[in-house]
Amino acid sequence: MPIIKVTMTEEEGGATAEQKAALIEGFTRVFSQVMCRGGDTAVVTIEEVSTDNYGIGGRSVTAIRKAQSAASR
Amino acid sequence: MPIIKVTMTEEEGGATAEQKAALIEGFTRVFSQVMCRGGDTAVVTIEEVSTDNYGIGGRSVTAIRKAQSAASR
Amino acid sequence: MPIIKVTMTEEEGGATAEQKAALIEGFTRVFSQVMCRGGDTAVVTIEEVSTDNYGIGGRSVTAIRKAQSAASR
Amino acid sequence: MPIIKVTMTEEEGGATAEQKAALIEGFTRVFSQVMCRGGDTAVVTIEEVSTDNYGIGGRSVTAIRKAQSAASR
Amino acid sequence: MPIIKVTMTEEEGGATAEQKAALIEGFTRVFSQVMCRGGDTAVVTIEEVSTDNYGIGGRSVTAIRKAQSAASR
Amino acid sequence: MPIIKVTMTEEEGGATAEQKAALIEGFTRVFSQVMCRGGDTAVVTIEEVSTDNYGIGGRSVTAIRKAQSAASR
Repeated sequence: MPIIKVTMTEEEGGATAEQKAALIEGFTRVFSQVMCRGGDTAVVTIEEVSTDNYGIGGRSVTAIRKAQSAASR
Repeated sequence: MPIIKVTMTEEEGGATAEQKAALIEGFTRVFSQVMCRGGDTAVVTIEEVSTDNYGIGGRSVTAIRKAQSAASR
Repeated sequence: MPIIKVTMTEEEGGATAEQKAALIEGFTRVFSQVMCRGGDTAVVTIEEVSTDNYGIGGRSVTAIRKAQSAASR
Repeated sequence: MPIIKVTMTEEEGGATAEQKAALIEGFTRVFSQVMCRGGDTAVVTIEEVSTDNYGIGGRSVTAIRKAQSAASR
Repeated sequence: MPIIKVTMTEEEGGATAEQKAALIEGFTRVFSQVMCRGGDTAVVTIEEVSTDNYGIGGRSVTAIRKAQSAASR
Repeated sequence: MPIIKVTMTEEEGGATAEQKAALIEGFTRVFSQVMCRGGDTAVVTIEEVSTDNYGIGGRSVTAIRKAQSAASR
């Protein structure tokens, strides 16, 4: 009964229900194939975090996206 | 100052404020009785996760609930 | 690529975007100065939790705030 | 299939196997009684953290224990 | 820069370095294929928990393994 | 009573007690200055993860360090 948690930024409306289902299915399959257990019992949780609440290298992803957008103009 | 975190699916409108208060009170009491400390300082956080973002055995709880509902008809 | 996660109550409308940016910048700076690495790659996530879902010493922060408010009247 | 995680300092050799079993049993019972589900499926994990790696109010628990010990002499 | 964390019991000596590498590679591949990002930056952490510190349905995995072993004799 | 958790690789013997104390002090100071609360109550936990159990971009940090070491020869 392994626990797999993914934390990711919520970009452009967030992941679709289909993407979430594919992450749940895929992570469980990988765990089951590698560890030979957990296929029926693995718990997967998906946490989506707004870009204001997610930082990389000292800047929020909101700020990083703005800088990228300005640079690409 | 132990930290207790519960993660659960948000089903049918989610837990009520009374249920949340009972979880906080109960978890703290259990910890305090077992470990003989932490009764005044334990921190409890409750994370409710939508059924799309929670998977068991490779399927989202949304999909599991639908299958259960179809099977019971 | 250290991961720094802060969990806090969401009080009075929650932290502002400026406060969040300052937490991200400050935590990353502290880690980088102390460990001499991670300045460009540290990931910071901020989780805000409603006062109903956050308990201290067996009571929800909602209940604690109410008692404080009643006591100060 | 709720997930309950407790994080606590590892003091004086850490919690015994009996204490850990009592935490697992107690947390699961509280959840099951309050939420009317999860009794058979709740996952509880216990994380013990050395007092060097646990801080309260800006000081490690190691330092707090030393100060308490000095003050009580 | 998604964060993927797997928590699992440490059984029979724990996962091998090859299994851990396969989990890291597999989880990252699944995320990257589903979300079309994160292939170069996903962070995966693996937490192994002793069977005393891991409970399912109110009993430690240590106790569950003992009961299974006794039942199969 | 905010909770701040840092997860980092355990490299070359891990962080010293002095570095851990500085992380605890620094994270608490940053939180307190930015949010104007939590200075006395913030909980900081430090999790050190072996380089086998930490992956970036699909490879373990153990493998990344080996490749860096080979490239620098």
